[in-house]
Amino acid sequence: MRDVCIAGIGQIAVGEHWDRSLRDMAVDAVVSALNDAQVERPQMLFVGNMLSGQLSLQENLGALVADYAGLRGIEAFKIEAACASAAAALRLAYLAVAGGMCDVAVACGVEKMTESRSDRVTTALATAADAVYEAEQGVSFVALNALLMQRYMHQYGYRREDFGGFAVNAHANAAGNPWAMFQRPITPEQFATARLIAAPISLLDSAGIGDGAAAVVVMPADLAGQPPRKPVRIRASASATDAVALHDRRDPLVLDAAALSAGRAYAEAGVGPQDVDLFELHDAFTIMSALSIEACGLAPRGHGVGLAKEGAIALHAAHPMSTMGGLKARGHPVGATGLYQVVEACLQLRGEAGVNQIKGASLAMTQNIGGSGANVFTHILERCW
Amino acid sequence: MRDVCIAGIGQIAVGEHWDRSLRDMAVDAVVSALNDAQVERPQMLFVGNMLSGQLSLQENLGALVADYAGLRGIEAFKIEAACASAAAALRLAYLAVAGGMCDVAVACGVEKMTESRSDRVTTALATAADAVYEAEQGVSFVALNALLMQRYMHQYGYRREDFGGFAVNAHANAAGNPWAMFQRPITPEQFATARLIAAPISLLDSAGIGDGAAAVVVMPADLAGQPPRKPVRIRASASATDAVALHDRRDPLVLDAAALSAGRAYAEAGVGPQDVDLFELHDAFTIMSALSIEACGLAPRGHGVGLAKEGAIALHAAHPMSTMGGLKARGHPVGATGLYQVVEACLQLRGEAGVNQIKGASLAMTQNIGGSGANVFTHILERCW
Repeated sequence: MRDVCIAGIGQIAVGEHWDRSLRDMAVDAVVSALNDAQVERPQMLFVGNMLSGQLSLQENLGALVADYAGLRGIEAFKIEAACASAAAALRLAYLAVAGGMCDVAVACGVEKMTESRSDRVTTALATAADAVYEAEQGVSFVALNALLMQRYMHQYGYRREDFGGFAVNAHANAAGNPWAMFQRPITPEQFATARLIAAPISLLDSAGIGDGAAAVVVMPADLAGQPPRKPVRIRASASATDAVALHDRRDPLVLDAAALSAGRAYAEAGVGPQDVDLFELHDAFTIMSALSIEACGLAPRGHGVGLAKEGAIALHAAHPMSTMGGLKARGHPVGATGLYQVVEACLQLRGEAGVNQIKGASLAMTQNIGGSGANVFTHILERCW
Repeated sequence: MRDVCIAGIGQIAVGEHWDRSLRDMAVDAVVSALNDAQVERPQMLFVGNMLSGQLSLQENLGALVADYAGLRGIEAFKIEAACASAAAALRLAYLAVAGGMCDVAVACGVEKMTESRSDRVTTALATAADAVYEAEQGVSFVALNALLMQRYMHQYGYRREDFGGFAVNAHANAAGNPWAMFQRPITPEQFATARLIAAPISLLDSAGIGDGAAAVVVMPADLAGQPPRKPVRIRASASATDAVALHDRRDPLVLDAAALSAGRAYAEAGVGPQDVDLFELHDAFTIMSALSIEACGLAPRGHGVGLAKEGAIALHAAHPMSTMGGLKARGHPVGATGLYQVVEACLQLRGEAGVNQIKGASLAMTQNIGGSGANVFTHILERCW
């Protein structure tokens, strides 16, 4: 197994891109990443995407993106793992390069959501849940997360407002990220009085959907480490699955797959949760943030919310999270999100995070969650230049 | 890079499975393959599927199938490459095992098509084409193949009836395959007078859609080669892409991606087209068979049809093809097809093909085509026990 680096990164701003097609967005991200890595032609392309078939009537996305990126002929695949599709694409690019099966792979995540009617998007997102035992019974994806949040509040004695710290932190950080969809702060009061979507989840508990694409170039460390690149080493790449339906879980308030994939990542990297300088977590809903933090061992059960409440996740606090705005405020183009997280972690490790820069950041963790905890990918990244 | 074997195979009969859900079918195939390989728990699962989001409103298929197969916790991914999704899943399982990133991987292909209205299926299948420049203009997937067939007939001077050899051969072979959807022969006369779907393509040029699932267990050769297994060595695994839209191709009658992936496979295996004892080709339409044969070097340009016309593709002729019925008569559950091809090739190499057994078969080739030639996967398999 070879040491593997991210040799180049690319992203487009998350937003409503009426002037850019699905393929155009993906191509922009891929070409940016290739330019950043100063590589002309990768051998493999892994396109993470969840909804192109349902919302854009476009499958065969691997070949399409490869061709429009000027890479006709290379190997290309579309990878789907619900909201974790992009991190799944990175995981496979990593496998190919670490195993010596290719020298240059690109992982790209892309999603086009805002052109479709909102009811179609809601239906499409519910395909991340169990179609037969959840979605078909009328439970939307937001409603599933609302059930989790309700249970969490009941079991541990929290109120809705206690979750505000996650959203306030994310929006504060997005204000400094030119690629973020919502570059403006919010107040705890705004959070407390936000419109309810599916009680107890409000508009400000929820990540906004958007259009976007992000990409990275993956290379073996010995090839990536040439100036003027700023390679970021992939210290660990791990994933794990759980039941898709909530009622099939061992315990609905424990994300077993997140714990398993984080545990595998820690073991692979030889580090623990306290060694991580920043954590790009899957804050699609505030409840997911709390559960992810607990699964990763950054807080005990029932105390994930506490970290945000106490301000411990702010940029210059003990455990910086969502440092460029997170899913909540950078925006959540679902099949692209996992690579936005990785690109943002790379910006921090490369010292290119602008006003959001965490001084001396050398170790970052990203966690991308597919469904309400069904397929979870954890990556640990390290500055190595 | 390690030598890699297929240590176990599983499939369910292709058909209209009103009593079996998408997940049930996938689980049946995966469990059969694991039992055949005498393996309890793989580390990775790659699920090839094209249409589950559109037709079954179910994504997150990797985690879902892993859980229902009793494999909760393992790594799992859904892979999409249009009609080549299943071979793409095998390609990735191969990469993971050959590169030493895991010791036991399962590749599964599954598709559920017959529960949906036919207009929905037609729309869904068209997502294999270019959504903007082809499908949105009203061209269905069958129509794209009809354009190719028309052009082929015009350029090389063939008539519709000349393509009949492919379908007659496929149906003759399906009669001996208990897993095939159409286990009955057809005559050249039936072919010549079949109802037109999109001229010049008739019902009997076209593979029937169906529900189905097939799976294989992939292991390193040194672990797979223990009795009582009958491991089949993967001598080559290769893929390549081309433009998705026909009008973007260098030459519409040359499948560049098929030629490229076959060329890569031949080079990797150190063999040529004449060394192959049987060829499971992508006979979704008779025109695809002709173009695939030419791309693989089994006949010169414009002569692919000739092979079928002369009877050279029959079971005991020079170049046996579609030996268990092919897509045409075994049935074509699109995202599962690539692994049906591989399972059937393994049956031949293991001497388990029943009345369709090709005596002494030791080298087999499979080619799975995504879209009308956009993403093509070629595998060369060898008996090794």
